[in-house]
Amino acid sequence: MEGKALIEKELNNYLKQFEHHGLYEPISYLLNIGGKRIRPIILLDAVELFGGDKKAALPLALAVEVFHNFTLMHDDIMDNSSLRRGKPTVHEKWNVNNAILSGDTMMIQAYQLLEKVPVEFQPAIYKAFNKMALWLCEGQQDDMDFEERSEVSIPEYLQMIKNKTSVLIGFCFEAGAILGKADAAVQEKIYDFGINLGLAFQLQDDYLDLYPKSTKMGKTIGGDLLNKKKAIPYLIALNSANSDQKEAIETLINSQDENRVEKLTALFAKLAVKEQTEKMIEEYFQISNESLESIEGFNLTPIQLFAKNLMAREQ
Amino acid sequence: MEGKALIEKELNNYLKQFEHHGLYEPISYLLNIGGKRIRPIILLDAVELFGGDKKAALPLALAVEVFHNFTLMHDDIMDNSSLRRGKPTVHEKWNVNNAILSGDTMMIQAYQLLEKVPVEFQPAIYKAFNKMALWLCEGQQDDMDFEERSEVSIPEYLQMIKNKTSVLIGFCFEAGAILGKADAAVQEKIYDFGINLGLAFQLQDDYLDLYPKSTKMGKTIGGDLLNKKKAIPYLIALNSANSDQKEAIETLINSQDENRVEKLTALFAKLAVKEQTEKMIEEYFQISNESLESIEGFNLTPIQLFAKNLMAREQ
Repeated sequence: MEGKALIEKELNNYLKQFEHHGLYEPISYLLNIGGKRIRPIILLDAVELFGGDKKAALPLALAVEVFHNFTLMHDDIMDNSSLRRGKPTVHEKWNVNNAILSGDTMMIQAYQLLEKVPVEFQPAIYKAFNKMALWLCEGQQDDMDFEERSEVSIPEYLQMIKNKTSVLIGFCFEAGAILGKADAAVQEKIYDFGINLGLAFQLQDDYLDLYPKSTKMGKTIGGDLLNKKKAIPYLIALNSANSDQKEAIETLINSQDENRVEKLTALFAKLAVKEQTEKMIEEYFQISNESLESIEGFNLTPIQLFAKNLMAREQ
Repeated sequence: MEGKALIEKELNNYLKQFEHHGLYEPISYLLNIGGKRIRPIILLDAVELFGGDKKAALPLALAVEVFHNFTLMHDDIMDNSSLRRGKPTVHEKWNVNNAILSGDTMMIQAYQLLEKVPVEFQPAIYKAFNKMALWLCEGQQDDMDFEERSEVSIPEYLQMIKNKTSVLIGFCFEAGAILGKADAAVQEKIYDFGINLGLAFQLQDDYLDLYPKSTKMGKTIGGDLLNKKKAIPYLIALNSANSDQKEAIETLINSQDENRVEKLTALFAKLAVKEQTEKMIEEYFQISNESLESIEGFNLTPIQLFAKNLMAREQ
């Protein structure tokens, strides 16, 4: 069975076990409104790469998906988002209290799924999982703090998205190596691969928000700029701008000008923001590739293909 | 060193490790504004009772305190409480987002502390901890749901406070038995003891809210009634009332009458609510005692003394 189908089946069985209790309804809802299941798929692919037992890895794959969705449920409250995967967020459909408590419950459920990890791997998995989870919270805190700050440097931003996005991707690859009994050096290499692929992925997310390769109906171009979100194109622009241009950018982003995205894009064009962003994405993708290719003795082709597909999305 | 001093020292060392990051400030704040540390003290006492290694149990004791404070941080948001231990709650001093995220972080930190539980006990501890944590969320959900409901039965209420309060007390005793390598039957008995002691404790909390044994300056009598909280005296009153009395109680509790607490107390007196509540507390305390006394071969005196002291508080 393909990774995604396997995850969906496992998830379905898992959700069936829930008692009828108000606490679990928002959880089933969020886990059922879609999602690409990228993280558990990565984990299973990595287990396969290193010759581990894919079936024994399923509860951990599920734990990762449940944990990821817990972060979405709480992040949506904190970011005041009304839509998730095109559907009302949990705090919109129920209320903030439900979203807090069902989110807490999901985190506990993720840990409960870890009980099913084969005992020999548990200490390593718990250690890596907990570290990842704490970094993720630090990333979310930085993300919120950055909104209040007037200036954020590119290295600070990269550190934030590393914590908020990459460490979970890194964990999925690392966990696959642990369950596949790969040695410590290999675990580290595949983790680094995941971290840098995660960075490339998130930077591309920022890029596609302003420079989509195709346009889907209803999709807003430059949503980050409209929300004054300090994503990478904006930070690169400020970094390349002279003081006049800097002032123009800051005036525009804080204005209510209906055409501010177009005007900012025109300004960004003079600063080669698109090309600089593409270069940065490509660089992180390259670094990730180098980490991957330094791993010897395994068939890396499926993972390379996966990474390539991940980066080939159009919006 | 006495239990409380031991906990405070361990907690202090723990808090020192935190990096300087906005995420950890609310955590240090909440853990530093006091608290009786009842739960970790119970755990250490239970470890001692069963001849386990108290020092090896310290990280678990700390995990329990951190976890308990995570629930307080999130419950305070959900209950819209502005004060905790006489100080501003985290969401008041910072904001709701900080309280959500720092609470999440505390839960992860509690799990991270579990990594230090001796490996031989980890599977049993994780299993019991996760179950307890999920029940606690169910209890909080029921507590919130009950506020919206016009009628709540006494058994429903007991089930709710069992989940919200007792299961964590029960876990602390059970964990002590696990770390002391007591056999399964003993683990079960001490857990039952903790559950029923926890019920007696929470029922007494409800009782003292309306019938304090001493009055501290500034302490409101009947706060639960003023907040329309369906605590046990109110539920016992409704249960004993005829339809006229029932109507009178419900009219009063929903009124803005300044003297409604006095009037309700007078009505409750006719229904022997005080005596019925005392009897219920005494019954749960008795049941807990029976579970404890059925444990053979250990010196139960310190735990019996602890339980007696716990129930002897005056408000």
